[in-house]
Amino acid sequence: MCQHAMKALVYTAPNEIALQDVPMPEIKHPTDAVVRVTAASICGSDIHLISGHLHVPTPIRLGHEFCGEVVEVGNAVTKFKPGDRVAVSCISSCGTCINCRRGLPYHCLSGDDAGCFGASPLLDGSQAEYCRIPFAENTMHMIPENLSYENVLFTGDILSTGYFGVKRAGVKPGDRILIVGAGPVGMCAAVTARLHTPAQIIIADTVQDRLDACIKNGIADLAVNVNETDLISTVMDETKGYGVDCAIEAIGQEATTVTCMRATRVGGNVSIIGVFSSPVTLPMDELWIRNLTIDTGFVPVTQMPELISLLENGKLSSDFLITHRAPLNDIVKGYDYFKNKKDGCIKWVVTPYIH
Amino acid sequence: MCQHAMKALVYTAPNEIALQDVPMPEIKHPTDAVVRVTAASICGSDIHLISGHLHVPTPIRLGHEFCGEVVEVGNAVTKFKPGDRVAVSCISSCGTCINCRRGLPYHCLSGDDAGCFGASPLLDGSQAEYCRIPFAENTMHMIPENLSYENVLFTGDILSTGYFGVKRAGVKPGDRILIVGAGPVGMCAAVTARLHTPAQIIIADTVQDRLDACIKNGIADLAVNVNETDLISTVMDETKGYGVDCAIEAIGQEATTVTCMRATRVGGNVSIIGVFSSPVTLPMDELWIRNLTIDTGFVPVTQMPELISLLENGKLSSDFLITHRAPLNDIVKGYDYFKNKKDGCIKWVVTPYIH
Amino acid sequence: MCQHAMKALVYTAPNEIALQDVPMPEIKHPTDAVVRVTAASICGSDIHLISGHLHVPTPIRLGHEFCGEVVEVGNAVTKFKPGDRVAVSCISSCGTCINCRRGLPYHCLSGDDAGCFGASPLLDGSQAEYCRIPFAENTMHMIPENLSYENVLFTGDILSTGYFGVKRAGVKPGDRILIVGAGPVGMCAAVTARLHTPAQIIIADTVQDRLDACIKNGIADLAVNVNETDLISTVMDETKGYGVDCAIEAIGQEATTVTCMRATRVGGNVSIIGVFSSPVTLPMDELWIRNLTIDTGFVPVTQMPELISLLENGKLSSDFLITHRAPLNDIVKGYDYFKNKKDGCIKWVVTPYIH
Amino acid sequence: MCQHAMKALVYTAPNEIALQDVPMPEIKHPTDAVVRVTAASICGSDIHLISGHLHVPTPIRLGHEFCGEVVEVGNAVTKFKPGDRVAVSCISSCGTCINCRRGLPYHCLSGDDAGCFGASPLLDGSQAEYCRIPFAENTMHMIPENLSYENVLFTGDILSTGYFGVKRAGVKPGDRILIVGAGPVGMCAAVTARLHTPAQIIIADTVQDRLDACIKNGIADLAVNVNETDLISTVMDETKGYGVDCAIEAIGQEATTVTCMRATRVGGNVSIIGVFSSPVTLPMDELWIRNLTIDTGFVPVTQMPELISLLENGKLSSDFLITHRAPLNDIVKGYDYFKNKKDGCIKWVVTPYIH
Repeated sequence: MCQHAMKALVYTAPNEIALQDVPMPEIKHPTDAVVRVTAASICGSDIHLISGHLHVPTPIRLGHEFCGEVVEVGNAVTKFKPGDRVAVSCISSCGTCINCRRGLPYHCLSGDDAGCFGASPLLDGSQAEYCRIPFAENTMHMIPENLSYENVLFTGDILSTGYFGVKRAGVKPGDRILIVGAGPVGMCAAVTARLHTPAQIIIADTVQDRLDACIKNGIADLAVNVNETDLISTVMDETKGYGVDCAIEAIGQEATTVTCMRATRVGGNVSIIGVFSSPVTLPMDELWIRNLTIDTGFVPVTQMPELISLLENGKLSSDFLITHRAPLNDIVKGYDYFKNKKDGCIKWVVTPYIH
Repeated sequence: MCQHAMKALVYTAPNEIALQDVPMPEIKHPTDAVVRVTAASICGSDIHLISGHLHVPTPIRLGHEFCGEVVEVGNAVTKFKPGDRVAVSCISSCGTCINCRRGLPYHCLSGDDAGCFGASPLLDGSQAEYCRIPFAENTMHMIPENLSYENVLFTGDILSTGYFGVKRAGVKPGDRILIVGAGPVGMCAAVTARLHTPAQIIIADTVQDRLDACIKNGIADLAVNVNETDLISTVMDETKGYGVDCAIEAIGQEATTVTCMRATRVGGNVSIIGVFSSPVTLPMDELWIRNLTIDTGFVPVTQMPELISLLENGKLSSDFLITHRAPLNDIVKGYDYFKNKKDGCIKWVVTPYIH
Repeated sequence: MCQHAMKALVYTAPNEIALQDVPMPEIKHPTDAVVRVTAASICGSDIHLISGHLHVPTPIRLGHEFCGEVVEVGNAVTKFKPGDRVAVSCISSCGTCINCRRGLPYHCLSGDDAGCFGASPLLDGSQAEYCRIPFAENTMHMIPENLSYENVLFTGDILSTGYFGVKRAGVKPGDRILIVGAGPVGMCAAVTARLHTPAQIIIADTVQDRLDACIKNGIADLAVNVNETDLISTVMDETKGYGVDCAIEAIGQEATTVTCMRATRVGGNVSIIGVFSSPVTLPMDELWIRNLTIDTGFVPVTQMPELISLLENGKLSSDFLITHRAPLNDIVKGYDYFKNKKDGCIKWVVTPYIH
Repeated sequence: MCQHAMKALVYTAPNEIALQDVPMPEIKHPTDAVVRVTAASICGSDIHLISGHLHVPTPIRLGHEFCGEVVEVGNAVTKFKPGDRVAVSCISSCGTCINCRRGLPYHCLSGDDAGCFGASPLLDGSQAEYCRIPFAENTMHMIPENLSYENVLFTGDILSTGYFGVKRAGVKPGDRILIVGAGPVGMCAAVTARLHTPAQIIIADTVQDRLDACIKNGIADLAVNVNETDLISTVMDETKGYGVDCAIEAIGQEATTVTCMRATRVGGNVSIIGVFSSPVTLPMDELWIRNLTIDTGFVPVTQMPELISLLENGKLSSDFLITHRAPLNDIVKGYDYFKNKKDGCIKWVVTPYIH
């Protein structure tokens, strides 16, 4: 770390982002590490964030989905050393507070160093050349030799989020599954739902390109464009009027939530992994009697070791999500392409800055 | 069964009920039984029903919470014989369809003989001298010798409903619990939550009498009159700002549902056993991030054997719910007392008709 | 059923079986059905039984793994009618006793009509032209239109047994699995373990043919011939010294049980689906500290609907097990081929008798 | 820490222990703490250990069940500070390795600083004036204000062990439970089984004093002296021939293990928390068919927060176990009394050394 400044994408005001020169991160606590970011990506929540909805204080370095090479560790870190290749959780957490022990790292109670990179005020983001990782032994995971940085890039956020939805939905062999939303998170739900061998995965969206990608990549059995087809009718036709065993909501809106509830059989699960920006009205008078279980929440990211093992053993791949790839130099363009789904962009991978 | 007619409470139109002479029930199918009703009660859902909200076709004989003595069985019934004392599930169900196998008897798919007594069109109710029990071997449970009819009276509905809420809430030793609603169902949730030794049971209502009864009977540690005290503040004070581990909603309204969600800690459970008669608006934008699990539904009544065993062994009692007791002759008065909470009425037990 | 006699394989004394003329089965109880056996098989437990180890009273008609066409139903049976194609559980059970409610149909408490076909004294077996099915609505399952009798033949016994082992072992995505025993039951464990996408399935046996069949049919990733290779060393090499996440014992011997325990990681599961005929000595002094869970037991057969759904949707197939097929006329030869693994016999299917 | 030497009980050879002057412990790693031991106890495994069976290298400072006051913390420890009162797990573990993440702290993979105090070669024990605590934030738990050191003393070992047995046994409301062994661990199983409101707790031993203590303290409903009464017969009488729902083995011998298996109903659980010093022969030919689940293992100690919360809220107490109390000066006498059950000794508490 002979340099004293580096490049990072900085969010300065709603809809204002810029690649800036910023100070290099440093070890603050003995349990910290600093990594050189070798692969990062732009996530849907980055888009939410820069719209101003999430009330994040500015300026802040953005980015939370990333991998890196360890360049320095604090004196309490014994499990990692410079040179190690690591997948990093989007959430920094202590591992020992009551919420961490309960499997809720996002709700870690250990102060300012706990939270989401690039969103919590003191946790600089990863759309940068380097990034400081608090609670390094809990937050980072070694990358197996046979996997590249890109292979594991999504384990720290959207792949874990999709799998979280699948776990909460309780997907079992032989189930019929509905996933509403064929964005990157919905696709991650689909590809990890496959691990449990459901009888059928139905995915729904309004973007035909993405629906086509789901079918082409074999992650869904039926892709429904809700601009053209009535989703509830389709689900009922496919399930002989019974409804799906579980539905995963990957958008975060009222209409999609209600659709998921109506499409799900009695006693089924509705797992919500979308991010809501307004209240929702639910027809509980109609649906209370159906014995549904509805889950919400922020990804626990506790499945990273399991996901990395699945990738290592060739049982899972999320590489199909990567449609674009460019160095950090071009990241502002990346935000535009990703946000506006230009050129069929599903995920835009940020490679290291070229000096 | 030498008689050909008997007395039964009949619902004829919204807010119209009367004790009438009706034909005796008969065995229709080989798996039926007929029981002489030895103890019945009036349930909150009877009050819902006669208000007209539930759109039940009229006329119908009311009542679904009851015990009886077997007087006749169909030729396929081998586990019961005349003279047996039985607790009866409020739901008649086949036990072998896909929904019954999934533990959802209310959603039994076996036609008109499946459903709730006194509410499903072909299932005459139990506020009568006799009642036909379809799928008798699945629907009835033998009463142990050391228990009276009244001891087990609530196992077929509200005690199971309360326990269902507790199970869905996942109450564990050391948990803090909030129960919103101190009516009979909320009280049943409280008394069965105690089985899991939570650290604290907080119960809330607007009726001071009932709150007092909860404390007096030792089923709650703290009783909050929400007309006088802010419930969320109280919960947060009691839990050092953390929230309860689980909340049980036993009313079925928007405000109480939102309160339960706000009072529950991250990663906690909100178990809804109230009956809703209108849609609810939930602040999902505020709460999605809290990793809540929300359950709804109609009591599965699959816990009857466990509850009867607990009663038999003196580990549980619901006798404290019984505040009034009168023969079927007086049932119309019973509806008035129960509905209007007259004279501190919690549960009104209907004993056999006096000729 | 104009006939009054039919053919059935009868076990008369240890190692004595013969195809005999026997009376046609009849409806005894209103909940019975009679089926014409359209496909049956010979099972490993038939071989155990005729060796005399199981002390079954003679004479008895053998056979318990089968499908059929309903020819008659009792007057309490409404879910099936003559002509229906059904898969039959190897266990007849009432569905409503305490053990059935607990998911333990083999331990059904409903008298002589409960038990295993062809083994319980009053339950005539299925290696016959016709068979009586007690508790028909609980014991039989409708076959979907797109499946043949042979497609579902093993759901009533060995496919359920293998899946039971997998469920008890708690197989999860990314796990490494060891299956000791590559007979039909071990193969069924392997093919159903695949449904949970383990990282690796290692199967072990002494019969090279069967190991080859496992690899050829894609149901195992590594097949170890324990006559040639040290299994524990192989497991430790494959798992970097950590051990498999779960092991399934499908033989029923001491050495294989100890091997499974030694091969399993700390905190892992050893699921025993083999049938034991002698006590076993386990090195608990060495292994108590490893936090293992060891399960044993008779298949609950409660997974039949899930397995049939998986077959219906093309997510599972057990057809590869069928190596031989001949009419009931040749069943004694079938016992010889199956028992002695002649001609690579894995499963011998018995088709209807040719008059 | 102005002193440079202190007193500690040292195990030097089989059956040789002595209170010696030893060097004060020091912070070795930034994640360490040093505590002044304010309460310790003698545990059954100390007795095992000094008998020489466990092959622990000598000399070693003994003791692993203890509480203390923090006197110094490493620079990576932020959750504790000098003066804090802490309950300490008997197991030091990192909290982030794969085994810790799986809830198996005893099997922590983080080298010599992980393991059991007073048994792992580099982890000096707690029967001393001071003790070094590695991985302090994971290994220590704050004591609530309203609890004394003695109140929480057993949470770090035997109370967790007993509760572990109860959890693995799956005790539910209404269950019947058998606990074989009424030593301190068996008593801890009994008192924590009560948290789940079983219908009946049967405890068995050969020491009448201890059986009397179980009844007197209300932790068992029936106490059986197996020198006088046949335990299996008693269990079968009490359970109408059905067997208990779960059995907890708290001794570690063949006969008691087989008894537990025979006493347990079909589909029940046998949870083994005893420590075995020789192999056991199990009648699997008789018992395989009974669908038992058998668990073994070393206490995970992950329930400490839940147990401390139960103690804090007055829902649990283990104070009745303390029959003797003396300063560290008298610990050798304590070993004699505890080992030989002299003077009715159940637990001997070691208070600080008196200079």
